[in-house]
Amino acid sequence: MKKDIMKVAIVMGSISDEPIMKNASDTLKSFGVKCETHILSAHRMPNKTREFAGGLKKSGIGIVIAGAGKAAHLPGVIASYTERPVIGVPIKTSDLGGMDSLLSIVQMPSGVPVACVAINGAKNAALLAIEIIALSDEGMAEKIKKFKYDMEY
Amino acid sequence: MKKDIMKVAIVMGSISDEPIMKNASDTLKSFGVKCETHILSAHRMPNKTREFAGGLKKSGIGIVIAGAGKAAHLPGVIASYTERPVIGVPIKTSDLGGMDSLLSIVQMPSGVPVACVAINGAKNAALLAIEIIALSDEGMAEKIKKFKYDMEY
Amino acid sequence: MKKDIMKVAIVMGSISDEPIMKNASDTLKSFGVKCETHILSAHRMPNKTREFAGGLKKSGIGIVIAGAGKAAHLPGVIASYTERPVIGVPIKTSDLGGMDSLLSIVQMPSGVPVACVAINGAKNAALLAIEIIALSDEGMAEKIKKFKYDMEY
Amino acid sequence: MKKDIMKVAIVMGSISDEPIMKNASDTLKSFGVKCETHILSAHRMPNKTREFAGGLKKSGIGIVIAGAGKAAHLPGVIASYTERPVIGVPIKTSDLGGMDSLLSIVQMPSGVPVACVAINGAKNAALLAIEIIALSDEGMAEKIKKFKYDMEY
Amino acid sequence: MKKDIMKVAIVMGSISDEPIMKNASDTLKSFGVKCETHILSAHRMPNKTREFAGGLKKSGIGIVIAGAGKAAHLPGVIASYTERPVIGVPIKTSDLGGMDSLLSIVQMPSGVPVACVAINGAKNAALLAIEIIALSDEGMAEKIKKFKYDMEY
Amino acid sequence: MKKDIMKVAIVMGSISDEPIMKNASDTLKSFGVKCETHILSAHRMPNKTREFAGGLKKSGIGIVIAGAGKAAHLPGVIASYTERPVIGVPIKTSDLGGMDSLLSIVQMPSGVPVACVAINGAKNAALLAIEIIALSDEGMAEKIKKFKYDMEY
Amino acid sequence: MKKDIMKVAIVMGSISDEPIMKNASDTLKSFGVKCETHILSAHRMPNKTREFAGGLKKSGIGIVIAGAGKAAHLPGVIASYTERPVIGVPIKTSDLGGMDSLLSIVQMPSGVPVACVAINGAKNAALLAIEIIALSDEGMAEKIKKFKYDMEY
Amino acid sequence: MKKDIMKVAIVMGSISDEPIMKNASDTLKSFGVKCETHILSAHRMPNKTREFAGGLKKSGIGIVIAGAGKAAHLPGVIASYTERPVIGVPIKTSDLGGMDSLLSIVQMPSGVPVACVAINGAKNAALLAIEIIALSDEGMAEKIKKFKYDMEY
Repeated sequence: MKKDIMKVAIVMGSISDEPIMKNASDTLKSFGVKCETHILSAHRMPNKTREFAGGLKKSGIGIVIAGAGKAAHLPGVIASYTERPVIGVPIKTSDLGGMDSLLSIVQMPSGVPVACVAINGAKNAALLAIEIIALSDEGMAEKIKKFKYDMEY
Repeated sequence: MKKDIMKVAIVMGSISDEPIMKNASDTLKSFGVKCETHILSAHRMPNKTREFAGGLKKSGIGIVIAGAGKAAHLPGVIASYTERPVIGVPIKTSDLGGMDSLLSIVQMPSGVPVACVAINGAKNAALLAIEIIALSDEGMAEKIKKFKYDMEY
Repeated sequence: MKKDIMKVAIVMGSISDEPIMKNASDTLKSFGVKCETHILSAHRMPNKTREFAGGLKKSGIGIVIAGAGKAAHLPGVIASYTERPVIGVPIKTSDLGGMDSLLSIVQMPSGVPVACVAINGAKNAALLAIEIIALSDEGMAEKIKKFKYDMEY
Repeated sequence: MKKDIMKVAIVMGSISDEPIMKNASDTLKSFGVKCETHILSAHRMPNKTREFAGGLKKSGIGIVIAGAGKAAHLPGVIASYTERPVIGVPIKTSDLGGMDSLLSIVQMPSGVPVACVAINGAKNAALLAIEIIALSDEGMAEKIKKFKYDMEY
Repeated sequence: MKKDIMKVAIVMGSISDEPIMKNASDTLKSFGVKCETHILSAHRMPNKTREFAGGLKKSGIGIVIAGAGKAAHLPGVIASYTERPVIGVPIKTSDLGGMDSLLSIVQMPSGVPVACVAINGAKNAALLAIEIIALSDEGMAEKIKKFKYDMEY
Repeated sequence: MKKDIMKVAIVMGSISDEPIMKNASDTLKSFGVKCETHILSAHRMPNKTREFAGGLKKSGIGIVIAGAGKAAHLPGVIASYTERPVIGVPIKTSDLGGMDSLLSIVQMPSGVPVACVAINGAKNAALLAIEIIALSDEGMAEKIKKFKYDMEY
Repeated sequence: MKKDIMKVAIVMGSISDEPIMKNASDTLKSFGVKCETHILSAHRMPNKTREFAGGLKKSGIGIVIAGAGKAAHLPGVIASYTERPVIGVPIKTSDLGGMDSLLSIVQMPSGVPVACVAINGAKNAALLAIEIIALSDEGMAEKIKKFKYDMEY
Repeated sequence: MKKDIMKVAIVMGSISDEPIMKNASDTLKSFGVKCETHILSAHRMPNKTREFAGGLKKSGIGIVIAGAGKAAHLPGVIASYTERPVIGVPIKTSDLGGMDSLLSIVQMPSGVPVACVAINGAKNAALLAIEIIALSDEGMAEKIKKFKYDMEY
């Protein structure tokens, strides 16, 4: 099973989120993690979002990184349809700075968790995915260990 | 068609929201509007929520009033599956006072509107539904007119 | 009566709100909804605002979309004088990002509802008006259904 | 003219604001300022509010102290109908602590000022009214001077 | 006494606030109100600020308009030394948008009122001063009445 | 390796956080996940916290759930010393409602991720840990799948 | 000189702040630091506050701990009159939770620093004063070192 | 001992904070205070940060000024390892304006104080350090006294 769960999906509500979310795919690729990117709006494309979330196992996707702004329901909606870990990236908004995105993602009610990172924190979302993968992948564990060592020394 | 759209559905994410949302059903009933109440969590019951939202026409429901707290996705998720008007009621939360619920409901992205009322504003949600119904129902128009007059005099 | 209530009025507190509010009129027009635009400040033009709100029926206006910023009383003041649905659009402000506009519009006290959409959410205000019109207009119902379908597919 | 403007009106949106607003009338009375109290909701009683605001001169009222909560439009609506000074008292709210009331009162747009005091600051509203009266009333000037001296010594 | 209290002082914490505060002096001058401008920091120039506030009567100043940003103590410090009305203008800040200035000015404790206007609301501060002057000056009362009429018609 | 990483550590800054954090251990136990609880303050016990974080591998701990309030550095400090996933639980505070805890945990700078859940969201923290464990543990995957199914039906 | 600067003054705006500020005096006493307590309102007692601040050297007071709530100017006003370090304690408020007190104290403009601690953080204010004293007092340095060690072990 | 504690260390989480933190070193140098600057991230360089904080006495550093942004743990982490005074400078952030940095620094839990100054308030941090040094250094006391005098006159 390990091979399959290695793949990470990066999902975003709008193509305008791409410059931010690209930090996630770049980081994943630099660690040799396979990833695929989808534009999926929880509100404008609810059926496609649900089909995506329901088909994660079949697609061999272990972890989802979902970025969204404003009333940012994308990570939560995906989480409602899968038991795979979902990492949410609140996208900065031009009016409230991303406080709306942050609260919409992090304040999930009991029963359906989302792992929220910082506003625009797509790179950390990728690192978190890598840390999760590293739990069952010795090679990845070495890589992330080295990455952390190199940050300091 | 008019008869069917008269019915209003009141939906809430958790039974604990009932004391607040009861103000909506009480108000609707006092105006003679038929309504039905559902407990539906967008996160814990995504399939039932979707089936509910997709079946509004068949159920003869014209307007949905949805109350939810925290990362309050219920109104938005319902709105993503229907073209009927959805009125959102942000429920007060014990930590952030309902600011999280409010932003999760009101800051909907372009394309999928939700009509948001005040935190815990279930009564106003019902009055808004009544105003909408009154647009195509002369009798209801008289009633809401009288209600407004009686508030002042 | 149906013909008359089809018309939507777009009202804004200041001409500087026009670039935002134009998204509402553009959307309404693209759906074939008749609309008219007014510059009316609740504070600087209280009598004209009241006359406008009191004369909605005579003007054949069914729904009002009102955009305002800062201590944004325009939607609430109009709502106080009419039983027709009022949709409020909080305009982004340069200092507080529109949080002031949002709270001034959404936190309406019991008895006088305003349907609040997102900060600068004029397009969604129009879509909400269209959803309301569609409740008693089969043709419009088809159009909004198609619009939602086209967003996804 | 001076005699007439001495009278201060205390207005509040709801009887539930009375325990807070009583601090204003108590303070005014302790300084020998005549005052009268009105329950007037800008939203539920727009016509009575307007008539009140338009009739200030005839009623011999020089200054209005208006307390309101949530989307607190009462001070602004009164100010829109009169050129007499209006002092606004934001009432604390149970969900947002009064931040909504504060922003709805203080963030008035250009052209129509309201003098805002602290959340629940009815006593200071009265003191401000007294300072204004004292500008054209030597006796009152002595009293407020003594009051300030007594606070310190 | 009336002649003396006609003069309004405009005080600001820093010369960088001048572009905002100029709206106050421009408005006062357009109404024929005499005014004088001072740069006085409550924190960096406490003695001069106190001397200014203590000498208002001698200087023939009836009303003070004080603009300040961040931990904006200037209006409150002046108010602590005088029984003349003090109008506070919170200056927008580059980090918190002026929320810090606003709360530092409006949330005055009981006993020492400041009349707070909107963030950067210098023009309204001047209009409020004019409304206060108009209470004991028939000519000014006519002018402000005409100003309000002209805003609407 | 899989057996070892199954263990989850629950860490909290103060014994007063125990009633909240107990929801995490209860949930973990109900899924048959081994867990251990530590009281460790990032500020008052920096050496013990560092030793704990540095010794996770040796202790057979795969995932850390850390709850803390106010300037809540505990999750971030642990994350700085380990490449194992750290889940942060912002604890509600009596003054700011937990907004301080939330921002201190979620706004982690680039390079060192923390998976943040809702204020007081200890149960969701446990479910997230279980979802992570389930990625490499078929039995756990069945359990969490059933848990999600049971929430809905 | 060292002896004199050992004394710490604890100042508070109102007797109602005493239960919070007592944590400062208790902590100082437990370290053998002499302290004295004053009730001084920056707004209601500006002259006494200034005399106090101007007389610190003569009173042998090296450090001032000042607690205040709402538009909390006390620490800043004292700091404007002395070059001795002033530590500010924002007092929790019943409406805004102390956010107003915090911003009024911490956002001091350039030139006049105040050392701000957490909302209601009087104990930490005392510990900070002790750390400052310990810089020139070997015995105190030993005590605070031991205090920190005892917190951990 | 006095000579040694004169030295002040300026620490920042990232080189991008340098333009802000330079105001601290410039101010210190203008007062003749020796200072040294370090780039140290609490999260990316936890061991170096700890070694730095643990070695302050040996390095002859009496006071630390630490600037950091977002979940700004740097001042708190340093304070956890030393009994020397730590002054925290919250760095403005592009999304939340520095509110995150501010709360992460100022809301320190009981037992480990940090002296927080304004967002981007590096100059005031330096002045606070100088005031502390002046407590045991007559020459510095004269300089800061003159500095304050020159600000006013």
